[in-house]
Amino acid sequence: MIQITVWNENFHESTKEEIAKIYPKGIHGAIKEGLETEADFTVRTATLTDPEHGLTQEVLDNTDVLLWWGHMKHNDVADEVVERVHKRVLDGMGLIVLHSGHASKIFKKLTGAASEDLKWRETGDMEKIWLMDPSHPIADGLPELIEIEHEETYGEHFNIPAPDEIVFMSWFSGGEIFRSGCTFKRGKGKIFYFRPGHESYPIFHREDIRQVLKNAVRWAKPLHNSPSVAYGHYNFE
Amino acid sequence: MIQITVWNENFHESTKEEIAKIYPKGIHGAIKEGLETEADFTVRTATLTDPEHGLTQEVLDNTDVLLWWGHMKHNDVADEVVERVHKRVLDGMGLIVLHSGHASKIFKKLTGAASEDLKWRETGDMEKIWLMDPSHPIADGLPELIEIEHEETYGEHFNIPAPDEIVFMSWFSGGEIFRSGCTFKRGKGKIFYFRPGHESYPIFHREDIRQVLKNAVRWAKPLHNSPSVAYGHYNFE
Amino acid sequence: MIQITVWNENFHESTKEEIAKIYPKGIHGAIKEGLETEADFTVRTATLTDPEHGLTQEVLDNTDVLLWWGHMKHNDVADEVVERVHKRVLDGMGLIVLHSGHASKIFKKLTGAASEDLKWRETGDMEKIWLMDPSHPIADGLPELIEIEHEETYGEHFNIPAPDEIVFMSWFSGGEIFRSGCTFKRGKGKIFYFRPGHESYPIFHREDIRQVLKNAVRWAKPLHNSPSVAYGHYNFE
Amino acid sequence: MIQITVWNENFHESTKEEIAKIYPKGIHGAIKEGLETEADFTVRTATLTDPEHGLTQEVLDNTDVLLWWGHMKHNDVADEVVERVHKRVLDGMGLIVLHSGHASKIFKKLTGAASEDLKWRETGDMEKIWLMDPSHPIADGLPELIEIEHEETYGEHFNIPAPDEIVFMSWFSGGEIFRSGCTFKRGKGKIFYFRPGHESYPIFHREDIRQVLKNAVRWAKPLHNSPSVAYGHYNFE
Repeated sequence: MIQITVWNENFHESTKEEIAKIYPKGIHGAIKEGLETEADFTVRTATLTDPEHGLTQEVLDNTDVLLWWGHMKHNDVADEVVERVHKRVLDGMGLIVLHSGHASKIFKKLTGAASEDLKWRETGDMEKIWLMDPSHPIADGLPELIEIEHEETYGEHFNIPAPDEIVFMSWFSGGEIFRSGCTFKRGKGKIFYFRPGHESYPIFHREDIRQVLKNAVRWAKPLHNSPSVAYGHYNFE
Repeated sequence: MIQITVWNENFHESTKEEIAKIYPKGIHGAIKEGLETEADFTVRTATLTDPEHGLTQEVLDNTDVLLWWGHMKHNDVADEVVERVHKRVLDGMGLIVLHSGHASKIFKKLTGAASEDLKWRETGDMEKIWLMDPSHPIADGLPELIEIEHEETYGEHFNIPAPDEIVFMSWFSGGEIFRSGCTFKRGKGKIFYFRPGHESYPIFHREDIRQVLKNAVRWAKPLHNSPSVAYGHYNFE
Repeated sequence: MIQITVWNENFHESTKEEIAKIYPKGIHGAIKEGLETEADFTVRTATLTDPEHGLTQEVLDNTDVLLWWGHMKHNDVADEVVERVHKRVLDGMGLIVLHSGHASKIFKKLTGAASEDLKWRETGDMEKIWLMDPSHPIADGLPELIEIEHEETYGEHFNIPAPDEIVFMSWFSGGEIFRSGCTFKRGKGKIFYFRPGHESYPIFHREDIRQVLKNAVRWAKPLHNSPSVAYGHYNFE
Repeated sequence: MIQITVWNENFHESTKEEIAKIYPKGIHGAIKEGLETEADFTVRTATLTDPEHGLTQEVLDNTDVLLWWGHMKHNDVADEVVERVHKRVLDGMGLIVLHSGHASKIFKKLTGAASEDLKWRETGDMEKIWLMDPSHPIADGLPELIEIEHEETYGEHFNIPAPDEIVFMSWFSGGEIFRSGCTFKRGKGKIFYFRPGHESYPIFHREDIRQVLKNAVRWAKPLHNSPSVAYGHYNFE
């Protein structure tokens, strides 16, 4: 079984009626629903207001892949929890950062750059997500073009390090482009950033988006039998 | 002095009046004109119909950076000349491949992929060229957005290996995106692919495009004092 | 089932008694033996002297991953077969190139460089293969160090494009280092180059080396449901 | 003029006589001496005990490239100064991190990983630094092999993100290898990590090592006319 934790700040859904209508079980609930159709996935959720944001050491130790959705409440995430997540990623836990999670403390820490920097605009542009790497496991079973009628716009320059791989890129009707599906590695951990998912559109109810997340979970999960690596003062035995 | 050779198949300009109007001195002439404003650049041109396509061993041995524009006549380029250019690139000569040069024999050989594969359409779309890497020498002095009112459209998937660096990407009004400025290295040679430059638009008369080419030449030129590398059977002296 | 074809020029084993003693079933036989312990692997072999080198269109169409061992007979491989393999790689077939296969026509064609260029020496050096990327699927279940008491030495500079990923690197007792486990992608195909495997040492009988090959096959296999990608003249329907 | 600041914690030289003998003007003094033979370099130094560690906003604003040597006193560097350096790197200042600077706060922050993790041993191993990328500007004028009779040993796995480029790699007589010359980009800033330089060996007095640093400064310096990039809420004018 692949053990998955979906983390969501769960703020918009709790405070705005129109968002609650789109996501009656929260964004985390919709993501969970999309993932748990897979027989070998076990999915739990955690939110900002849970004790330790629901991300205790025990939860993280039992998480193969963590999905992260945050937007308005990045600064309310405790530094101690961010450190804990960072360590687990270096130790092999997969991390999937969604949409405005680009500005989360954990993603900024992992990229080492100013990943909060990008252009944005809420004008309901059409988004076309093009497949850039048809060999990539995250592309399995997908069309080469995913069209989303309305989305928030993000535009380059996106202030991240050059990703290890670019799986998707977006075109927006207003004139922008964006690296929408990017992979990174840190230590033993695999990280996937995926752009779509603004709270005011029902993105996480879509089958194609759910397929991306399923593929990303399988790609990001730790190795079965992770190699032991020695650090520090060293002598061959 | 940086010694530059601009190669052009020179077919459209020689056979179609409307193209000759845009490029009365040929595409190669316009590129040359754009480059030779630099005091330390020496620019010569060569075309398909010259003996050995103007790319004799002597010319290549005295070329620091070669620019390549081809479109309809890729198959008329002699394999022997392609081999010669390939060797010179591996030996340190810079190569700048322009627009439809993506399907040239030399670029296909250097990429090892099917770089002729991409989507295209001639509908006069607007192209917006976004800067993806503001640290890159090829971006020096440029705006973050170059807008071209009408261009031929290219669309992903562009069937190249993942570039070492992506400097520019294009948005097209019709819905496509494209990796428009890509760097590669082969041996001691640096290669830059740059997308714009369809023959029916006066792209190479633009100051911004000329700036890209000037920067690319400086980036692609060989090292001053290239390290000597030994290959084959080897023993430390 | 993952369908695997192991290709071997099968020259040393057929002509030198001391090599035949190490590999009585040929290098291909030893590799096959190592792979077919996996329940979901179907392994066949093909050699240079088979009609069409055993790599007919039908065989390739039914191959998910091709392993390639060649050394003295690279030039005897028909260009037509090389073209066929190249096309299949671009179309998604995985390719694992072993040891002196770095100088094979197919690897040179796929890299676009002069991958035959490297330093070499047959002095029975010790090789230590270090794990460079502990997150990589090809490292699953392996130690961070594989020690081979005697091997042929390869040394940098290895004249390949910068690999997409470096999984292993080797240290040699004589003073050289080498990028021993490198991944590349071309089109839909994944390529893994793995250095060890000189004919005069029983490398392919080792459990650790066999584990690398098993992992590499799983990594390189095509997607279950490969995305359809359109190329050429294009209009949205 | 390229304005360079050499930062050094200056602890070993100030407290141990045998180190002071090797570096009577400090490691920073030796590095400065090596750089200022270039007519277009202006070099100043700064150390841990200077007010604000000598890295005031004004100094950083007037620094094109910062070199960093630290070892025992990483934790004594004020977080505020680290933030300031981080911002300047993102804004275009080049950064060259030397030897044990791999574990500095600034390098860890920029890599986003646990770059303090590596193997090490002080047994006076011989180090052979091999050139991995003969096309790279940092290799200009260098031999393909730099031999250092005695150095501290570092061994992989070095817990950094995959570098954008690997320029050098080291072999150690004791059995280790190490990615010794690595480039990274963050925002507009270029970063070069260079391994050699343990305090107990006269590394920074060597001409070859000084050549590497000179080349690295030229490579890392900001663009002449850095593109202006807009972030945040965005509308085309």
